[in-house]
Amino acid sequence: MLRTDPSVAIRALRSAAPYIRMYKGKVFVIKASGGVFADLASTRTLIEQVAILHQVGIRVVLVHGGGPQLTQIQESLGIKPQIVAGRRVTDEKSIEVTSMVLNGLVNTQILGICREFDIAAVGVSGVDAGLVRAHKRPPVNVEGTTVDYGFVGDIDLIDAKVLQQLLDDGLMPVVSPVSADDSGQLLNINADTVAAAIGGALKAEKLMLCTGAPGIMEALDDPRSIISYTDLQGLKRLKDQGSLKDGMLPKAKAIEDAIRGGVRRVHVMSYKSPDSILAEVFTNEGTGTLVVENISALSAAEQHE
Amino acid sequence: MLRTDPSVAIRALRSAAPYIRMYKGKVFVIKASGGVFADLASTRTLIEQVAILHQVGIRVVLVHGGGPQLTQIQESLGIKPQIVAGRRVTDEKSIEVTSMVLNGLVNTQILGICREFDIAAVGVSGVDAGLVRAHKRPPVNVEGTTVDYGFVGDIDLIDAKVLQQLLDDGLMPVVSPVSADDSGQLLNINADTVAAAIGGALKAEKLMLCTGAPGIMEALDDPRSIISYTDLQGLKRLKDQGSLKDGMLPKAKAIEDAIRGGVRRVHVMSYKSPDSILAEVFTNEGTGTLVVENISALSAAEQHE
Amino acid sequence: MLRTDPSVAIRALRSAAPYIRMYKGKVFVIKASGGVFADLASTRTLIEQVAILHQVGIRVVLVHGGGPQLTQIQESLGIKPQIVAGRRVTDEKSIEVTSMVLNGLVNTQILGICREFDIAAVGVSGVDAGLVRAHKRPPVNVEGTTVDYGFVGDIDLIDAKVLQQLLDDGLMPVVSPVSADDSGQLLNINADTVAAAIGGALKAEKLMLCTGAPGIMEALDDPRSIISYTDLQGLKRLKDQGSLKDGMLPKAKAIEDAIRGGVRRVHVMSYKSPDSILAEVFTNEGTGTLVVENISALSAAEQHE
Amino acid sequence: MLRTDPSVAIRALRSAAPYIRMYKGKVFVIKASGGVFADLASTRTLIEQVAILHQVGIRVVLVHGGGPQLTQIQESLGIKPQIVAGRRVTDEKSIEVTSMVLNGLVNTQILGICREFDIAAVGVSGVDAGLVRAHKRPPVNVEGTTVDYGFVGDIDLIDAKVLQQLLDDGLMPVVSPVSADDSGQLLNINADTVAAAIGGALKAEKLMLCTGAPGIMEALDDPRSIISYTDLQGLKRLKDQGSLKDGMLPKAKAIEDAIRGGVRRVHVMSYKSPDSILAEVFTNEGTGTLVVENISALSAAEQHE
Amino acid sequence: MLRTDPSVAIRALRSAAPYIRMYKGKVFVIKASGGVFADLASTRTLIEQVAILHQVGIRVVLVHGGGPQLTQIQESLGIKPQIVAGRRVTDEKSIEVTSMVLNGLVNTQILGICREFDIAAVGVSGVDAGLVRAHKRPPVNVEGTTVDYGFVGDIDLIDAKVLQQLLDDGLMPVVSPVSADDSGQLLNINADTVAAAIGGALKAEKLMLCTGAPGIMEALDDPRSIISYTDLQGLKRLKDQGSLKDGMLPKAKAIEDAIRGGVRRVHVMSYKSPDSILAEVFTNEGTGTLVVENISALSAAEQHE
Amino acid sequence: MLRTDPSVAIRALRSAAPYIRMYKGKVFVIKASGGVFADLASTRTLIEQVAILHQVGIRVVLVHGGGPQLTQIQESLGIKPQIVAGRRVTDEKSIEVTSMVLNGLVNTQILGICREFDIAAVGVSGVDAGLVRAHKRPPVNVEGTTVDYGFVGDIDLIDAKVLQQLLDDGLMPVVSPVSADDSGQLLNINADTVAAAIGGALKAEKLMLCTGAPGIMEALDDPRSIISYTDLQGLKRLKDQGSLKDGMLPKAKAIEDAIRGGVRRVHVMSYKSPDSILAEVFTNEGTGTLVVENISALSAAEQHE
Repeated sequence: MLRTDPSVAIRALRSAAPYIRMYKGKVFVIKASGGVFADLASTRTLIEQVAILHQVGIRVVLVHGGGPQLTQIQESLGIKPQIVAGRRVTDEKSIEVTSMVLNGLVNTQILGICREFDIAAVGVSGVDAGLVRAHKRPPVNVEGTTVDYGFVGDIDLIDAKVLQQLLDDGLMPVVSPVSADDSGQLLNINADTVAAAIGGALKAEKLMLCTGAPGIMEALDDPRSIISYTDLQGLKRLKDQGSLKDGMLPKAKAIEDAIRGGVRRVHVMSYKSPDSILAEVFTNEGTGTLVVENISALSAAEQHE
Repeated sequence: MLRTDPSVAIRALRSAAPYIRMYKGKVFVIKASGGVFADLASTRTLIEQVAILHQVGIRVVLVHGGGPQLTQIQESLGIKPQIVAGRRVTDEKSIEVTSMVLNGLVNTQILGICREFDIAAVGVSGVDAGLVRAHKRPPVNVEGTTVDYGFVGDIDLIDAKVLQQLLDDGLMPVVSPVSADDSGQLLNINADTVAAAIGGALKAEKLMLCTGAPGIMEALDDPRSIISYTDLQGLKRLKDQGSLKDGMLPKAKAIEDAIRGGVRRVHVMSYKSPDSILAEVFTNEGTGTLVVENISALSAAEQHE
Repeated sequence: MLRTDPSVAIRALRSAAPYIRMYKGKVFVIKASGGVFADLASTRTLIEQVAILHQVGIRVVLVHGGGPQLTQIQESLGIKPQIVAGRRVTDEKSIEVTSMVLNGLVNTQILGICREFDIAAVGVSGVDAGLVRAHKRPPVNVEGTTVDYGFVGDIDLIDAKVLQQLLDDGLMPVVSPVSADDSGQLLNINADTVAAAIGGALKAEKLMLCTGAPGIMEALDDPRSIISYTDLQGLKRLKDQGSLKDGMLPKAKAIEDAIRGGVRRVHVMSYKSPDSILAEVFTNEGTGTLVVENISALSAAEQHE
Repeated sequence: MLRTDPSVAIRALRSAAPYIRMYKGKVFVIKASGGVFADLASTRTLIEQVAILHQVGIRVVLVHGGGPQLTQIQESLGIKPQIVAGRRVTDEKSIEVTSMVLNGLVNTQILGICREFDIAAVGVSGVDAGLVRAHKRPPVNVEGTTVDYGFVGDIDLIDAKVLQQLLDDGLMPVVSPVSADDSGQLLNINADTVAAAIGGALKAEKLMLCTGAPGIMEALDDPRSIISYTDLQGLKRLKDQGSLKDGMLPKAKAIEDAIRGGVRRVHVMSYKSPDSILAEVFTNEGTGTLVVENISALSAAEQHE
Repeated sequence: MLRTDPSVAIRALRSAAPYIRMYKGKVFVIKASGGVFADLASTRTLIEQVAILHQVGIRVVLVHGGGPQLTQIQESLGIKPQIVAGRRVTDEKSIEVTSMVLNGLVNTQILGICREFDIAAVGVSGVDAGLVRAHKRPPVNVEGTTVDYGFVGDIDLIDAKVLQQLLDDGLMPVVSPVSADDSGQLLNINADTVAAAIGGALKAEKLMLCTGAPGIMEALDDPRSIISYTDLQGLKRLKDQGSLKDGMLPKAKAIEDAIRGGVRRVHVMSYKSPDSILAEVFTNEGTGTLVVENISALSAAEQHE
Repeated sequence: MLRTDPSVAIRALRSAAPYIRMYKGKVFVIKASGGVFADLASTRTLIEQVAILHQVGIRVVLVHGGGPQLTQIQESLGIKPQIVAGRRVTDEKSIEVTSMVLNGLVNTQILGICREFDIAAVGVSGVDAGLVRAHKRPPVNVEGTTVDYGFVGDIDLIDAKVLQQLLDDGLMPVVSPVSADDSGQLLNINADTVAAAIGGALKAEKLMLCTGAPGIMEALDDPRSIISYTDLQGLKRLKDQGSLKDGMLPKAKAIEDAIRGGVRRVHVMSYKSPDSILAEVFTNEGTGTLVVENISALSAAEQHE
């Protein structure tokens, strides 16, 4: 690592102090896409940042995805992802593999890195202690055909008590989105959706969605068109004008749910920028897109973050 | 289910009451071999019994194995178990699959069944919150050759704080034996060994090892030679005379460690007998083998249990 | 005691488990008439059942009467019960004897049996720590004559704080209905009335009135006409049609008060049936009469309990 | 009541302040003989004093006797006290009446007066929550004959947890000496003995024995010979020289047990002097006899108290 | 000190007991003018009384002034008090001296005396832990001229959390009225105003303003015209008719603010009468003037206090 | 302020994280000489650093001196410091001024700056709540003459309970060294001495003595001869060889007392280097002199700090 000039280090610490004061004891839900965990370096970069938030006293809940890992293991097992109308069908074998990959591979790897950074972290999934109560999504009509997407869940209720207990005990929950219904049948749920619902249940100060993209863009795939901040009305406009496509559509839905559920600020940001989380939290150099309920409630300074 | 005559039911409850009184608030570590979870029926039978212990106020920690499941998934993935001198070598790919299977398949399936029985359970492995601190076992000399068994761990320390916190919060920990070293490198450890070490760290009242065999036998594989109770000296005698073979040797080591660590009673019993745990705890009809530190401290009645 | 077949015992325990889960931590107020305590065997039968509820984690408050014992001691002392218009007059000597018998004989005997069953029980009466705040019932006009029934009290307020403290401390309160006014003058109050008022103050899950009769009967004294379940409207109908007589009238009033005060379910049942309480709580074989606020809120299954 | 000149009142309060400071939060066990409760006036005088101690923050445990009341009720019931070698035999009928009188008459009357003085008091006896664990005194040889004194107990153990819980909850325990063995059999124990044992178990600051006599006297029954202070050695000397007779002998034994058990100061004093307790606690005018472990540890000032 | 006859002392204690019971755990804010602390004797008289309130369990907050001391030190330093339109101007030098005198001289002297009386007291001023949040009073128009009174503050908010914490820890806060704005600029605020605001923030049972005058007088400076009790309407009448002058005007404003803020009773009384506080609290001989919200809510007895 | 490059800021924060983890919840006693507070800029520099320690969760106790301020105010008041044998005599007038200046000027100014940095700080001195129990130093023989240095105290006992309570309440104590004897007589004590005694009583992780000098120097006043680290034996050697003079002698005594009392590390450092505290705590660039009990227990890395 580049050696830091002590006086610079101190100046930096000094500039971070007001943010530490402001966010201490607040809940941050950080959702990291599976892509983060595809290589060890980006995993360590993320966890190191999360560790710092945890150590200065922010109550962090880390939610992870695991799409790429899942695809890879399924291929090793000779399972062909079955896609209907652009969406994956989760059959019995698939949900089992999903659990193995998310709960047993990605989640455990994160906990291993947490140990390296000396954070007392506990892995949970939606199945633990009734955290996510869901039901199997009923078959839907897709262009005239009834499609059963299989063991995919819709959330009925988040019982965040177990997260509160872990946070109160000084532990950091690392959450896999695998969930279950009341009979214990495992169900697959989108990680953004789970993170947003948990954010709402905990009335989080921030929900940070760390994705492969740099933020929400006005023009699809044109990073120069990134939107610095917007609000629920702005999101609706973007959707109406077709700026939101593919993975961004459920993400936009999750953002809206989180804000309506009580999260104060949602950030969409790239995990590829190495210090994006710390920069967002501890400097006035925001990255990515900030979404709030109503932009007019932002101060002038914040509007230029 | 056979309908129970209410008056019989009540008589039964009445006879169970003194045991409830005696064990309330005490810690029981129950270790179930992977074989239990091979089919849903035996899993449900086990969890239902554990649920009852949990519900009457016993502080249960459930530790599970997963050997058969691991073998099966490895085969699906085309991984050949590499056996040297009768013991499995855990290479990098294998430890990853071990984590997937134990932490993501078996553990999650157990949590799903716990939800069905309405127990607030949290899955942890040795990797969570520093529970098991281990180091990679160094290569050993086997019959003149140096063999590196790979990512297999030896326990340095159990930090049972996270288990205490979960138990104090009214949650039931379900523990996978996958562990890690201080750098976060995952390590495979025998589930009996982990259960015994946890039992010692928690000064458990009972450690119950639920296996495929009916107990410890005087004559190998002869169920009629089952030993009702014995003590550390008795174990040594059995070992010296060659009654303990294969899987029973590390089990005997785990039992000894547990008792020396402070566990009051270790039971070796079959998970195949449908009510074995409840019968052991709530009736005076013990099953399997009871091991204590010193047999002469047992009452006459206990000696005939 | 008849030896219970272990497998039956376990089956019974298993069938009781869901009820334990459901009622753990809930408050049950159990009122037992003085008749229970007339002989040691029926006292032990009752306390053994109560002990089991207490041990599985139900918060039990036991309220007792003591009519037969009182009559007997008064006779020994040569005190003639003075009856006016069918009701006992409590003069100064009588209230003193009432206190001796209820607080010093029946209550203490119950505590003695509790010690035998290893329950940490504390005897209190309405006089302790302001539990029951009452006033002397003013003289009433009975068929044209003013009758002063003496030191009989009407409840102004239940201050259940002392009961909450005892329950929080893991202790089981055993309550005698003897009460007092603010100057400390002892007053006699009907035990059903006290139990109902306590049930309301604690928002009890169940109030169980254990009496000599098998339940509420449609036709007076005809056990075949026992009513399985009814509600406040049903009680009124029974009263209007004259099915409630003598001791059942104040009991009906107490039931109504309890339900209006917040008790969810009131059971009228015989203490003579040896396992009546356990059967009611832990099996689907209810005995006696269940009274709820509104029958239509009961599930079909419950209506056939 | 005589009107107090306010300036005198204030001067008095001022002189009491250092004692309040000194004794706040300390445990005082006050034992009052049954004679106190023989008439309402002396009962109220005692309770009023106790109330003041309780209200200024001293943790008071009040233990009462009830000899005269017992004799009177036994006579009403036609029971003849059976005296052997100068000591009362407690047969089955007698222990029942003892419980009625102590637990149901004297204890409840005290609680009634407590309510008048607005003290939240809870009556307990040795039977409640395992407070006094005793066994029946075996028959003894009295002058060559074996005499069974019946249901009289010797203390095995005080489990003061219930008293600690009540005191922590801000409640004042009022303790009757009736106790029991592990089977729940009621046993009669001398109130001084119970008070001394409780004092020791609670490491009380003071044990105050309020009796009919003004203190311990050098010459039997000569109040002019009252001893102001003494210690264990002094007590022994008094006993050896025959100054202790009758009731004073077991009292001396209780005093010794209390001091050896950890009570700092034992006072023997008359309940007949109207303000004796308050004067002892809040002024430098001690009354009666003070017994400590070793007189030479008293300051000069204290020796002239 | 005059020797108190013990029996009188006890009678006094007895008469004080109901008041101790009534006020235990309640908050009293006592404000003592700087004059009290001008000589050691009157300081000790005050603190001794406050100590007694503290020791019997009243939660006392003592607020002090320090006018005479301030004047004296300023003179020693050659600072001339600058008076405009009858009110002192606080320039930069003056606010520094004010802090020295109030926070470093008067406050510390009080703490010294508290140590003598063995009270665990902690000195705080409006500057500590955000207790008083104030802003500099803007220049005002006095008879046509704009006058800047300098570093004089108006209260925006009392954050009484630090006082609650100290009281919960069993400590007695001794409060100097020196306060500050959010930038830490020290500001002088009238001690009556601070005491009234603290009283409101703590919903105090009593605010006692101990001044040089015997109470509020109908005719200025005529002690015979002292008003025993009045209410907000009465205060207004007095002001309208010109009975309130000089220092009494801001005091009347503070009294009104306290009562509107939630203080139940405000007393204006002389610190010169040696036992005034104790007499007011512990006897029915009130001194000075009692102000309540509405006189008609006082009982007849209270109206003759 | 120089604008910090965000990526540098983040790199700095990252390098600080391990130190935050290490010191969170530990006690640091920081003693700042009066010189720090002589101008606002250096005061703000110090408090800003202290604020950062406090905000990241270190339990900071700040002890201050005030020599220069005291001299200045005494001069303003025309008080001539009376020096005998090189040491100041504290007469009655002087101790009063000392209290004014330390408790009312310096302490309050620090609290004002704390408010600016939004730290909830509470000012205490040795007089508050029995923090420092001292006695007046008896007259000493100085070169044949008996000299009474006046109201100067020697510490008998630190009762750190009030500091523990404040720290537990999340408040930062700001401590003035003015103390008192049991009668409340104020006494002047050296701030280093008080800080060292408090450090010992709290078993502080670090005692940081911020002075005008850069550390302990081998050659008097030659900053090039600064000693990086030493231990108790080294201190003795320095003293024996005459390297410690004037103010450094009592400082060395305080350092020794602190280490013997249980402080792990004592730092002597200059408050003039702007970031000295932060650099010491959060970088591996130590400044000044580190004193430990025994140098050989330091790691090699630490020896080159």
